[in-house]
Amino acid sequence: MDIIEIIEHKRDKKKLSKEEIEYFIKGYVNNEIKDYQASSLLMAIYLNGMEKDEIANLTEAMRVSGEVWDLSCIEGIKVDKHSTGGVGDKVSLILGPMIASLGAKLAKMSGRGLGHTGGTIDKLESIPGFRVNLTKEEFINQVNNVGMAIIGQDKNIDPADKKIYALRDVTGTVSSIPLIASSIMSKKLASGADAILLDVKYGNGAFMKTIDEAKKLATTMVEIGKSLNKDVKAEVTDMNQPLGCAIGNNLEIKEVIDTLKGNGPKDITEICISSGAILLNQAKIFSSINEAREAIKESVKEGKAFKKFVEFVKSQGGDVSYILDPSKFPVAKNIIKVYSLNEGYVHSINALEIGKSSMHLGGGRETLDDVIDMSAGIVLNKKVGDKVYKNELLATLYTNKSEYETIKENVLSSFVIKKERVKEENSLTHEIIE
Amino acid sequence: MDIIEIIEHKRDKKKLSKEEIEYFIKGYVNNEIKDYQASSLLMAIYLNGMEKDEIANLTEAMRVSGEVWDLSCIEGIKVDKHSTGGVGDKVSLILGPMIASLGAKLAKMSGRGLGHTGGTIDKLESIPGFRVNLTKEEFINQVNNVGMAIIGQDKNIDPADKKIYALRDVTGTVSSIPLIASSIMSKKLASGADAILLDVKYGNGAFMKTIDEAKKLATTMVEIGKSLNKDVKAEVTDMNQPLGCAIGNNLEIKEVIDTLKGNGPKDITEICISSGAILLNQAKIFSSINEAREAIKESVKEGKAFKKFVEFVKSQGGDVSYILDPSKFPVAKNIIKVYSLNEGYVHSINALEIGKSSMHLGGGRETLDDVIDMSAGIVLNKKVGDKVYKNELLATLYTNKSEYETIKENVLSSFVIKKERVKEENSLTHEIIE
Repeated sequence: MDIIEIIEHKRDKKKLSKEEIEYFIKGYVNNEIKDYQASSLLMAIYLNGMEKDEIANLTEAMRVSGEVWDLSCIEGIKVDKHSTGGVGDKVSLILGPMIASLGAKLAKMSGRGLGHTGGTIDKLESIPGFRVNLTKEEFINQVNNVGMAIIGQDKNIDPADKKIYALRDVTGTVSSIPLIASSIMSKKLASGADAILLDVKYGNGAFMKTIDEAKKLATTMVEIGKSLNKDVKAEVTDMNQPLGCAIGNNLEIKEVIDTLKGNGPKDITEICISSGAILLNQAKIFSSINEAREAIKESVKEGKAFKKFVEFVKSQGGDVSYILDPSKFPVAKNIIKVYSLNEGYVHSINALEIGKSSMHLGGGRETLDDVIDMSAGIVLNKKVGDKVYKNELLATLYTNKSEYETIKENVLSSFVIKKERVKEENSLTHEIIE
Repeated sequence: MDIIEIIEHKRDKKKLSKEEIEYFIKGYVNNEIKDYQASSLLMAIYLNGMEKDEIANLTEAMRVSGEVWDLSCIEGIKVDKHSTGGVGDKVSLILGPMIASLGAKLAKMSGRGLGHTGGTIDKLESIPGFRVNLTKEEFINQVNNVGMAIIGQDKNIDPADKKIYALRDVTGTVSSIPLIASSIMSKKLASGADAILLDVKYGNGAFMKTIDEAKKLATTMVEIGKSLNKDVKAEVTDMNQPLGCAIGNNLEIKEVIDTLKGNGPKDITEICISSGAILLNQAKIFSSINEAREAIKESVKEGKAFKKFVEFVKSQGGDVSYILDPSKFPVAKNIIKVYSLNEGYVHSINALEIGKSSMHLGGGRETLDDVIDMSAGIVLNKKVGDKVYKNELLATLYTNKSEYETIKENVLSSFVIKKERVKEENSLTHEIIE
């Protein structure tokens, strides 16, 4: 077998065999296959696609390219949750404690933010002392004892994905469903959970711009799960406005706390309950989704979910005094208020622009080397559907930078305000694929 | 502008602008654009193609990526000839002296052989003392004084082609018409001739396997010439059997000498006369192709063409005594005769297999680092159309290697012999595109 032949096969629209895919992944990980050959193959995959079983074989080859974590010593069904990324997405941090307070075991590795999207790991690091790099033993013990742990992607897991992901980023081969699906699924499957819930977002703040693309990606990943005998479900959800009101690291942690206390924004509360209920069902703790929903609401009301969050933060070394008194979190020195120029109803809030604005305020990374300002970001005072008066507050910006006029204008123009009322959507979830 | 955006444009079937193409070529030559980005773009070009003006812009950007030779100080119209490569193709070495003896100026850079195809430069180096690396001044003076010079590709010309060619070879992006056409034409245009005749070969011994592919490549290159205001013509010619009888370096030089003396094989004689006549017409020495043909025949008959070859060899430092007495050329120590197993007519001779066999006998390179045995190769004693008796000689192999049994069998099975007579073809030239 030889890599040029493999490239030619995919170039000529032939199906790659399991052996060819394994040869590529092994050769690329051990540097026998060069970057320029891998990128040529990736472009051929991008343009000519892959069939179901090719994608499953690619995922499996990537999964076993490095360490595979065995979580079987943890009692019960271990669940994991993955979102394709959005603006203001702090769902895992809320539903984790919700379901762990009801007996579920959430074992999750997560990523850092880049560009307009935030990362769960960065958000957790805004809590002083919080350790995102537990050892495998610490991770297993914590999932066993606390019911949840969230750590950074372990560096020995899925080296194939690391190399391919970095290469795709600089070779115009990012937005390919076979490549996105295998990247997500190989990592998730290598980190050892029994059941996985995927949240595939669509809309201007997401990587998938349309419902159709998002459905295609979700279906592809659920099919990979089936091929490899894993319980994988996927939600297709709306990311046409930011999720919740807070965007930016410690601002989002404060919203996590509010929501776990029952005082969160409506949209984020609802999606955490609905996703959490699916996970409780996958974990076989509730056979009825409705009962699971009620149990989650009850847990929040009784303060159990918040208590679980405190326990989780403490167990990973975070300073719990910040969680108990969020006013301790540092606040950016410049607080800029954005007011509406006219009266009407908020029809849309451009999530991509809000995400980029938060990044420019210091709350995100433009390149992987940038350092994040944990206190920077945006709080939305109005969401889609809200009535707004002229000169009423739309959003509040937090930054330690001294130049923010352009950003302020961008945030203002991200709000589309019209005279007519907006028809209310019941749920962000468009569809569940299983 | 940025290379990822350029890759994405071609990936998404958009037309690349002149500026984008120039940005890519400049950036790649000065190493700002990486191999893995170039190969991703090349695969996108391979799969999504390029329009006429994109190919012209790519050619022009490559042409000016290095030194461009100005031959305007040579009097008259400078002509150049290029063949896409085949087995036994020694045409330039014969038609060069033919047309130079009639006043034409042939200024040619040429390549080395690889795989089953030979290279003009290697063949010339089988003449002791022959220098294939003249300086620009020596080259110009010789074209002026002798009427012809053939040298290796100057290393400062078209560095973009060198990098792209080497990359295509290892990334499955060789057989793309826009990439082949721009590679050939950018080099040819940078080396300064006023008029170019291309010989695009088709058949099993050529890179283009079908007439259609060859016509497409020929048309593309002629169109590039038009876009860039150059007189470019192309012949589409048959390479379904080796050209002439000799394959292998000094064996071919001996055939060149025979042909220039009027004793060459019919096919090679005919194609040299017909291509030479087109070049004499492009050089505006003859306005009638027929008159040019007659003049070439006359020049051969009068010994002028052979005399010009001697002058050319001498001017480039070659030992002329070998040309005057070809028995001086070293002969391989093993001479193996291949006899026919049955009686009939030769219907075909697999040029690809004959080319590979010659390479395996030592006459060619499998990789660029291999050293050629100048005396190794094959002489065909029968060609397509010939009557052959059982146990009659089909071919003679020359090698200094001691293992040749498999090669002998391959050569034997390259001959397809059938009972029926073969319809004779008048000419190898299928079509002339201008």
